[in-house]
Amino acid sequence: MPDIYQELIKLAEGDMYPFHMPGHKRNLQSTPLKGAFRCDITEIDGFDNLHDEKGIILEAEKRANRLYGADETFFLVNGSTSGVLSAVSAAAPEGGNILAARGSHKSFYHAAYLRNLEIEYLEPRMIGAYGIFDSYNAEDVKRAIGNVRVKPDAVFITSPTYEGKCSDIEGIAKVCHDEGIILIVDEAHGSHFGFGDGLPESAVKCGADIVIHSLHKTLPAMTQTALIHVQGDLVDKALLKRFLRIYQSSSPSYVLMSSIDLCMKEMQDKRKEFSERLTGYRKKILDETRGCSILKVPDLSELEDPAKVLIYADTDQMTGQQLYDILREDYLLQLEMAGEHYALAIITGWDTEEGIDRLIKAVCEIDECLQKKPGAKVDAIEKRYSIPKREMSLQKAWDSEHETVSLNMAEGRISGDFINLYPPGIPLVVPGEIIGGDLIKDIERYLAENLNVQGIFEVENSENKGIIDISKRGIICVKQK
Amino acid sequence: MPDIYQELIKLAEGDMYPFHMPGHKRNLQSTPLKGAFRCDITEIDGFDNLHDEKGIILEAEKRANRLYGADETFFLVNGSTSGVLSAVSAAAPEGGNILAARGSHKSFYHAAYLRNLEIEYLEPRMIGAYGIFDSYNAEDVKRAIGNVRVKPDAVFITSPTYEGKCSDIEGIAKVCHDEGIILIVDEAHGSHFGFGDGLPESAVKCGADIVIHSLHKTLPAMTQTALIHVQGDLVDKALLKRFLRIYQSSSPSYVLMSSIDLCMKEMQDKRKEFSERLTGYRKKILDETRGCSILKVPDLSELEDPAKVLIYADTDQMTGQQLYDILREDYLLQLEMAGEHYALAIITGWDTEEGIDRLIKAVCEIDECLQKKPGAKVDAIEKRYSIPKREMSLQKAWDSEHETVSLNMAEGRISGDFINLYPPGIPLVVPGEIIGGDLIKDIERYLAENLNVQGIFEVENSENKGIIDISKRGIICVKQK
Repeated sequence: MPDIYQELIKLAEGDMYPFHMPGHKRNLQSTPLKGAFRCDITEIDGFDNLHDEKGIILEAEKRANRLYGADETFFLVNGSTSGVLSAVSAAAPEGGNILAARGSHKSFYHAAYLRNLEIEYLEPRMIGAYGIFDSYNAEDVKRAIGNVRVKPDAVFITSPTYEGKCSDIEGIAKVCHDEGIILIVDEAHGSHFGFGDGLPESAVKCGADIVIHSLHKTLPAMTQTALIHVQGDLVDKALLKRFLRIYQSSSPSYVLMSSIDLCMKEMQDKRKEFSERLTGYRKKILDETRGCSILKVPDLSELEDPAKVLIYADTDQMTGQQLYDILREDYLLQLEMAGEHYALAIITGWDTEEGIDRLIKAVCEIDECLQKKPGAKVDAIEKRYSIPKREMSLQKAWDSEHETVSLNMAEGRISGDFINLYPPGIPLVVPGEIIGGDLIKDIERYLAENLNVQGIFEVENSENKGIIDISKRGIICVKQK
Repeated sequence: MPDIYQELIKLAEGDMYPFHMPGHKRNLQSTPLKGAFRCDITEIDGFDNLHDEKGIILEAEKRANRLYGADETFFLVNGSTSGVLSAVSAAAPEGGNILAARGSHKSFYHAAYLRNLEIEYLEPRMIGAYGIFDSYNAEDVKRAIGNVRVKPDAVFITSPTYEGKCSDIEGIAKVCHDEGIILIVDEAHGSHFGFGDGLPESAVKCGADIVIHSLHKTLPAMTQTALIHVQGDLVDKALLKRFLRIYQSSSPSYVLMSSIDLCMKEMQDKRKEFSERLTGYRKKILDETRGCSILKVPDLSELEDPAKVLIYADTDQMTGQQLYDILREDYLLQLEMAGEHYALAIITGWDTEEGIDRLIKAVCEIDECLQKKPGAKVDAIEKRYSIPKREMSLQKAWDSEHETVSLNMAEGRISGDFINLYPPGIPLVVPGEIIGGDLIKDIERYLAENLNVQGIFEVENSENKGIIDISKRGIICVKQK
């Protein structure tokens, strides 16, 4: 069975002349992006239609499906974003209820906004040392379902997290299914799960009803490609397909689709080789940085996903951002992100031995440097995270008339927009929630620490050596009558 | 100022090692799609962020903006689909009102569904000879605004149509603005407008508030790339940006974005050359097929967009599909689509002289063949198109419980899904509308003519030489209590 790419190349090498879209007519004179244009077509005869697949796209989706083993698998060309929007929209009716972790991806909040859902949250818990969200087990979810006012239509869990924490999806699925509740797992960061020894099991195998995979994050597929898997009887599959049609382009890119297909074929053939290389790289990094005394790489017992290498700087002499900057500027190593006290690297089976060695060498050298400097360990303050009280639905509050209110005047007001702390990307407040005095103090502290708090506007330039004048910082509130 | 592509190549040729997404690590061993992988990155330092652009993406958007001249221009990586969803969502509040042409793209209906809008329609009018929707003038829109129950929040016009009909956007914009109504123009098929002599003026220049351009349709950009332009004071630009963030991947493809940027730079430098080649090709086709007596190519006075070459078979001996199939199978010319009596070719400035000559030769030869056969002219029946009465909102009906009802029992029932006739892609009925006896007769006739009616299900295989047993065909209706 030829793959999509082989069919595209056959077309490119044949004599069929294109009197159809795209406008570049596969004319390679018209771009330096020659390889991409060569395979870039529209839905012509023989090339199927993503939104009503019956031919080569359906075959490719079935190949992907066989790798993961759900009932059905669909290609996504608008990223996991379109998968999360579709999953949530299909799982909960307009005005329905959903239970989720607070640290969910923004597409989750967007879906809840579009469907006017009422969100209840799992109790947020953080791993104090690293300042990242912890995972959930079956008991956490059971307790939360018992505590909510209205039985949720769906539970939404992100596993692994950005930093590699995995929840007990099998246990959570059982709890959900006992209550007839749909379990959606945003496994965007775990497309490689289940592909070999040393990798966690995939949420599909653990029984989640809908699972979303960002292929580009850890597998060899182009950015913006993803998969959505569905199984069991709880999800209305026709409704899921409706939303996939709504949230994705009616002109999906064949370059992106063939990249998904090539990735799946490669994983079919080489997933063992891939996972051995990945886990081998991870082990090598752990082994060779074990001697470091200030920089620490948590092992798989702490962060279960081997693709995530968190490099923690246990010293008040260096922030995560500084570590990230040194790796980038002095060692030409571009990491994925920086946290308050850590920098995060993503490794996959397509890294090179040379790249891994450069990372190890850099970490050891920086650690040696840090040892020579005087410094104290980071205070392992247990981070608290409390969710503000909701006064109005997300949709109503975000759609209301707004006004900018200075931070020192905002206590008790209803938020009209999101305020997010990056990293790790936690919404401090969601539209419709009440802004409390504690939250204002937290924001003030984050601003003084020069952290990135999105949703705060400078009313006037008032920065002065870390002293923040909150009367000069504004936030969006629902307008008072 | 370097473009996005140049920056990507600089990165690819440099020594910076990627410990970030995508998982392929720009490792060209991992794919035959080498050119694409080489430039495929995520939002790393120096590469900006589509959803909060401040650097090279903002610069690229400004380049695009200068070409069209709106207040602001945004890149779209989820096609015009995401542009239409965002435009409609930003222009009308939840539960608002919109006035539109019936033949609008499905993303328009999807947006109306998501925002629970009440849709009023412009009076549908068809060009009888070709069986395609006609364009609109200012008077049509003025009359419609005067006739509707509630003043619409926005007017939504598709111009050019798929087949190349252009509406009087300047006049319509004046009518809308006199009433304080937002005008959205779906100019997906007209990204090349305004780029030279012989091309219609762009809707941006004509004063529309929001204009959506599918770059890939007629310009040298990859499939799934598009632009949205906004201008004037009627549209809440922050709200538009909110919806662009909602409906598009949070991992947008740099390959797609650099393709948009390269396309814009090329049009900046060569739009005159491009438009001269396009209009020259169009003239050549018209001139050299003028002698045909059965196949006819309407000129620019009938279909104003030179990129659309409609080849009309004025004979009962050949359907549009047959013409399309002969061109494809005997001449290796792949056209864009087939209508009842025509086939439609798209030409652009990137066609080759050789390709255009092959099309002309094919049309002349087929015409010669047809002359030798006995046949009658097509009856130029004036097609009527009436819009069914609405009983329930689109959102409510599509979200209701449904049941499949056989066509002969469906009269008077409320439709639970779309029924579309392809081509030209007209919704015969929209969820919430009442299925009338005339509509059932029309569908029966379309099925007998073997046309593609989407949304009709075969209850049992009952095809028998064109005799359609409508008791064996089912449609989705809102479930009766």
